[in-house]
Amino acid sequence: MYRDPVQSLEALLPPAAAGAAMRPLRVGMIGIGTVGAGTFRVLARNQAEIAGRAGRGIRMVVVCARSLARAMGVVGTGVALTNDPMQVATHPDVDVLVEAAGGTGPARDWVLAAIRAGKHVVTANKALLATHGNEIFAAARQHGVAVAYEGAVAVSIPIVKALREGLVANRIEWVAGIINGTTNFILSKMRDEGVGFAEALAQAQALGYAEADPTFDIEGIDAAHKITLLAANAFGMPVRFADAQVEGITALQGLDVACAEQLGYRIKLLGVARRRRDGEAEGVELRVHPALVPAMHLLAQVNGSMNAVMVKGDASGVTMYYGAGAGGEQTASAVIADLVDVARLEGTRPAQRVPHLGFHASAVNEDLAVLPRAAVHTRHYLRVPVHSAQQIEAVAAWLAAQQVPVGQVTLANDKALPPGSGPQVLVLTDTVAQSIVDLAVQALAAHPAVAGPVVALRVEMLAG
Amino acid sequence: MYRDPVQSLEALLPPAAAGAAMRPLRVGMIGIGTVGAGTFRVLARNQAEIAGRAGRGIRMVVVCARSLARAMGVVGTGVALTNDPMQVATHPDVDVLVEAAGGTGPARDWVLAAIRAGKHVVTANKALLATHGNEIFAAARQHGVAVAYEGAVAVSIPIVKALREGLVANRIEWVAGIINGTTNFILSKMRDEGVGFAEALAQAQALGYAEADPTFDIEGIDAAHKITLLAANAFGMPVRFADAQVEGITALQGLDVACAEQLGYRIKLLGVARRRRDGEAEGVELRVHPALVPAMHLLAQVNGSMNAVMVKGDASGVTMYYGAGAGGEQTASAVIADLVDVARLEGTRPAQRVPHLGFHASAVNEDLAVLPRAAVHTRHYLRVPVHSAQQIEAVAAWLAAQQVPVGQVTLANDKALPPGSGPQVLVLTDTVAQSIVDLAVQALAAHPAVAGPVVALRVEMLAG
Repeated sequence: MYRDPVQSLEALLPPAAAGAAMRPLRVGMIGIGTVGAGTFRVLARNQAEIAGRAGRGIRMVVVCARSLARAMGVVGTGVALTNDPMQVATHPDVDVLVEAAGGTGPARDWVLAAIRAGKHVVTANKALLATHGNEIFAAARQHGVAVAYEGAVAVSIPIVKALREGLVANRIEWVAGIINGTTNFILSKMRDEGVGFAEALAQAQALGYAEADPTFDIEGIDAAHKITLLAANAFGMPVRFADAQVEGITALQGLDVACAEQLGYRIKLLGVARRRRDGEAEGVELRVHPALVPAMHLLAQVNGSMNAVMVKGDASGVTMYYGAGAGGEQTASAVIADLVDVARLEGTRPAQRVPHLGFHASAVNEDLAVLPRAAVHTRHYLRVPVHSAQQIEAVAAWLAAQQVPVGQVTLANDKALPPGSGPQVLVLTDTVAQSIVDLAVQALAAHPAVAGPVVALRVEMLAG
Repeated sequence: MYRDPVQSLEALLPPAAAGAAMRPLRVGMIGIGTVGAGTFRVLARNQAEIAGRAGRGIRMVVVCARSLARAMGVVGTGVALTNDPMQVATHPDVDVLVEAAGGTGPARDWVLAAIRAGKHVVTANKALLATHGNEIFAAARQHGVAVAYEGAVAVSIPIVKALREGLVANRIEWVAGIINGTTNFILSKMRDEGVGFAEALAQAQALGYAEADPTFDIEGIDAAHKITLLAANAFGMPVRFADAQVEGITALQGLDVACAEQLGYRIKLLGVARRRRDGEAEGVELRVHPALVPAMHLLAQVNGSMNAVMVKGDASGVTMYYGAGAGGEQTASAVIADLVDVARLEGTRPAQRVPHLGFHASAVNEDLAVLPRAAVHTRHYLRVPVHSAQQIEAVAAWLAAQQVPVGQVTLANDKALPPGSGPQVLVLTDTVAQSIVDLAVQALAAHPAVAGPVVALRVEMLAG
């Protein structure tokens, strides 16, 4: 039988040295807000259970906070406190840095400093990794340390682990999901209570589901950070956030939520990454936008601030992962899972470890590009305000002549329409290039039958 | 910074030795049926992608099959073939044994022989691990090898990994799921088409969703194997299949499917493992039975032969995992994920690895017992055939007097009832000990108002 030479050498070590790896993993943390405090609390509460699973303890040794008084209220007196993030990042007693401060500029500096000092890093900061991930992962590879980020996507759901380890046998065809809790809360409100976007947002803010400045969430940027990381892990491509097509829900009208319902669909903000051949070349659709999903689809049942991610693998078929998309302890669940993974990898060679983006550097396809908007292929929903209901056939015929593959055409029910609204033609198309839809929508504006702005939304069937 | 001594020693090795672990992992497989053939096919088809993720190749070197001719039709000429399972289990060129033959007696012998020969083992055989798991895992611990079994529960869904690694930070409160595809297919048919159990079973057999001898599936035994393994991983207890309470769906009547629907519930065969204090002692409810689930609950939307598992952790909250519950390539997806995990652990110490049942041996609670049936606490659905609809209040009052906490009482709609059926009182209870329900059901038979056998089914809300 094959024997690993390192294992044989280890047998020659004195017992004390062989057992040395079992002392507690020493953690330094920057930030003691919701995520940081949650991490400290769960580590303390479940320390026996975690050590029983990990085979060693996990001990917080130093925390950086803006307010030391407030930090001491959380962590007590057994943990060193500092105002200086760099001191934590390079602390000689720290094995692993937990970056729980958020933001991109300074966080990048702290993380790179920790890596250069030979520390592993755990972070739930999707903005940081979506914008500086390629640089950070390259530095980690160079210094032989791990950067783990399960909490960066759909916090409590172990989707990074599922994609990178659980589904490792598969050629992944697509990943799609509801990966922003704030917008899903807003969309659920719009549907359940028939309110408009502005009112639903105000409710979300009042209940703490949306921040005072909700831009990152409602413009789809947060979801784009996350789907970018999932795409890299799914397809073996670099992090390409700058190329993602991002559309939020601020322009979404209650009328379209109601019309979608009439057609048997619900509107969700989806992040979608799909590998596709476009002519000779292979590319990846990487996009965030509101989309119609069949009302009976599992994703359509994901309500409130919950998240869910679906993955289609060639062997596994469709699998789905569901759970909380935000919250201090929910994020802590993922941060601590990363810490336990780190606790297990001391003494291993980087070549043995799960690669940062799922594929070893030599297997990453640097040429795998994000397809431009025009080349995206989906079904579409079109809502066309017309002067008279009789014009439904004229609109359908005109769209077909523009090479739009019209599937279903109907009129919006009166009860779906707000008072004073004219008739609305609803169209569901078959799969078609975005370029054709964009041209048709633009040209429709000049059509004499059309009485107002045409709305186009994508439709995702997400079938096995 | 702390440096692992093994890592330092490794730096002293000549380059060839340090790189030695990167040669392909060599696999021997017993069985080339649906799962074995699927594993071979996916390994071959996705070999570049898998090696790019694993950092090394995975190569099938020897296969044991009953028909060598049939086996050669699957694996071609590049793989050694044999009729002798023990030859594969102890083959000098094999690093890891894939047991894909099924069954318990001989499979146990092969797996133990492989372990004693220093081989890692991968299997999707839940019957084997539920009945001989404690012995097999103890032997693996003694010999320092891994036994991996992701495919044994809800094949393509990485639920073992999620529970054991992704949710490692949590104290798990309960695990519950639809973990048998055959019975879920039958229950979906019964509901969607209003057919009885026998007809739905016949359809499942005709379509290949049920075996010629469906006993293991329809009697709940297969699901009990799986929930037993999940319970051990969730709570740090030994494998206690013999103590599980197991009830299948053979006695389920179409009438109760219809009455459940009227009340806003669907009937699913659930595996449930729940940690609970019962007086002074802590115990685990470990059970498989048909249960009413709220129709709007995500688990109620899991139809056909699909599987889904929900886990409630104290930090994560509820997470859910959904996917195919059977199939050759779907199981292969899990088997190969295990092989990649094994490919990564050569040279590691067992103490660094994910323990077989989630907890290191010293942290397993040998005293954590399965609660007896009488001590199980759930809500209940009762259907009481009565001579006259006027007796509804008498039945409710009588149940309350028997300490059954009656929540909702109503009469079955006429349209739910088969022709000639008398009136039926439907009762939903609050949470109550099984002992109280059992006594009440038994005593009800003698109540003058009652016109036939009383049906009692558990109700699971599975709320966060």
